[in-house]
Amino acid sequence: MKVNGTPYRSLWWDESAGALQIIDQRWLPHDFRTQQLDTIEDYAAAIVEMRVRGAPLIGATAAYGMALAMARDPSDASLERAWDYLHDTRPTAINLRWALDRCRRALASRPEGDRVEAALRLAHEIADEDVEINRAIGTHGLELIREIAAGKPEGEPVRILTHCNAGWLATVDFGTATSPMYQAHDAGIPIHVWVDETRPRNQGALTAWELGSHGIPHTYIVDNAGGHLMQHGMVDLVITGTDRTTRRGDVCNKIGTYLKALAAKDNGVPFYVALPSPTIDWTVDDGVAEIPIEERAAVETTHVQGIGEDGGFATVRVAPEGSAGGNPAFDVTPSRLVTGLITERGICKATPEGMAALFPDMAQAAE
Amino acid sequence: MKVNGTPYRSLWWDESAGALQIIDQRWLPHDFRTQQLDTIEDYAAAIVEMRVRGAPLIGATAAYGMALAMARDPSDASLERAWDYLHDTRPTAINLRWALDRCRRALASRPEGDRVEAALRLAHEIADEDVEINRAIGTHGLELIREIAAGKPEGEPVRILTHCNAGWLATVDFGTATSPMYQAHDAGIPIHVWVDETRPRNQGALTAWELGSHGIPHTYIVDNAGGHLMQHGMVDLVITGTDRTTRRGDVCNKIGTYLKALAAKDNGVPFYVALPSPTIDWTVDDGVAEIPIEERAAVETTHVQGIGEDGGFATVRVAPEGSAGGNPAFDVTPSRLVTGLITERGICKATPEGMAALFPDMAQAAE
Repeated sequence: MKVNGTPYRSLWWDESAGALQIIDQRWLPHDFRTQQLDTIEDYAAAIVEMRVRGAPLIGATAAYGMALAMARDPSDASLERAWDYLHDTRPTAINLRWALDRCRRALASRPEGDRVEAALRLAHEIADEDVEINRAIGTHGLELIREIAAGKPEGEPVRILTHCNAGWLATVDFGTATSPMYQAHDAGIPIHVWVDETRPRNQGALTAWELGSHGIPHTYIVDNAGGHLMQHGMVDLVITGTDRTTRRGDVCNKIGTYLKALAAKDNGVPFYVALPSPTIDWTVDDGVAEIPIEERAAVETTHVQGIGEDGGFATVRVAPEGSAGGNPAFDVTPSRLVTGLITERGICKATPEGMAALFPDMAQAAE
Repeated sequence: MKVNGTPYRSLWWDESAGALQIIDQRWLPHDFRTQQLDTIEDYAAAIVEMRVRGAPLIGATAAYGMALAMARDPSDASLERAWDYLHDTRPTAINLRWALDRCRRALASRPEGDRVEAALRLAHEIADEDVEINRAIGTHGLELIREIAAGKPEGEPVRILTHCNAGWLATVDFGTATSPMYQAHDAGIPIHVWVDETRPRNQGALTAWELGSHGIPHTYIVDNAGGHLMQHGMVDLVITGTDRTTRRGDVCNKIGTYLKALAAKDNGVPFYVALPSPTIDWTVDDGVAEIPIEERAAVETTHVQGIGEDGGFATVRVAPEGSAGGNPAFDVTPSRLVTGLITERGICKATPEGMAALFPDMAQAAE
């Protein structure tokens, strides 16, 4: 997507340097910095320090890391070493492991002489596949927005609320929840986005930065505001992302998503969730009962990071000294509150039948 | 209530100094400072600069300001001057005007020689009346907590969630939503309070400070967390305050209250609102349609205040530069989501009939 007029992906191969460029996301939304990754240590640091974040982006970064390792030394031992080294950066990230396994499988079967070129081609492929999935999600979601726009007076914006950052920064491009927004904007459909702050980590600031950089009108609001806006007819549509969707359509996403889904239901506002099909967990049915919710460090709730009065990064403590903080990081929105799921194959109802009809192959494989 | 073992009110008359003492709330929850008000300018500054806050507390402060004015000069001219001067500090605060009018009416009819003593007695009366109303609210709310505790294994705490600060700091003592909590704790019933941060102004930090200072176990959580906690059976009861309640029981309170009410309803958690009857607006029926919601400065959403790394007060910007902030300050919770209203006369259903039965005098007067 665009950053002040220039199109970017969250990573890209620089042919002239023969190296990967990333956006160092630690400084966003306050400072836009890019970085060239020259060594395998650079790759590991980028993942460990969350310079790159979001499952698809981490996977693609790791694939390029494998390509670098092959360029340095295409031996079997090097392949194994690179797998171990990169896997250790975030051992619980499923997408990281998936990308590394895919690279190892494809490369191990080739003669050493082919591996350099094949590894780079595969990394490009993995990155491009993510872009295509997200583009397809956006194309389907665009139709929802177009339909709402058609029912409005010419020029009146479709008002969309989103929670957290399911944006292009968390993927290679387009994002998931944001993809329909970018495509609507680029198609000339006027939209306005209510961006939930998303405490405790304020990922809404990233979404606001993304949208602003691409030229999309938006307003940054606290997480408390959305219900009031919906009560007063100021939201036409909610679109969020998801970390994991169960086979009946329960949606595990950033803490607070459930509250927005309740408000949408109460006010007849359509509530859609955008997701790439690999994030569907066909082994889980009841998300509330079955999905364990990560409890993160209390300091995220008791403290807030931002830009201080001197223009530098700063942290303030908002809770009183001595008060404990609680920090469940995700919640589950029951499928009964979800109007539909926007996937790369199209839109389906958040029901076992709706999902199985759109993904008969996956549903069957999970039986 | 107690601050580390010592009982306090949010204001108190110091006999030896012959002056009012207040808690300068601008520094809370990070620093506990008291201040003696010696001049009418001190009184005005205390109200204007929000050293005292909350309708009942502002009213009581103004009454003591009238007493000071009478002690300096008990003439009719002085009485009028003091009314004007104090009223100008926050001309839209209904409770301020109510207290000033009551003082003027009572004092104007007396000979000048009686006014000094009568004014001080009246200020005490106004302060004590607020304490008694809040104590009564707490006594009725205590029964709800006691009932829940009775259904639990011995020693297991009743888990209460609250939003914003409807605590003793916003009143003369006890608070409204917090009064049942203090009384339950003091009666030896174990409770644990989930304290919503309450962005954008983080009044939850005041509530956490109050509870902690009185020795009540609590956890500071982001506003996004409550729904998840209710889904998992971790909340037995919600109690919030309210700025204004309509005659059918719609509740206008701090932004985000509505979202918690929706979650409570969805999970069968009782949702109670504590209020002194003077905040019932018998002229309004449909709160969502009829109550205008104040839009406050965007800087409250884009920035956060707290204690910086050097221990001093600091502000950080969390939203990206150039992103607009939206800041509706209140929302309305429809009565259908409210289990009951806890008032100084008892608990009633949030229905026109329930309210009229408990307050036949007021309901009739408003006909």
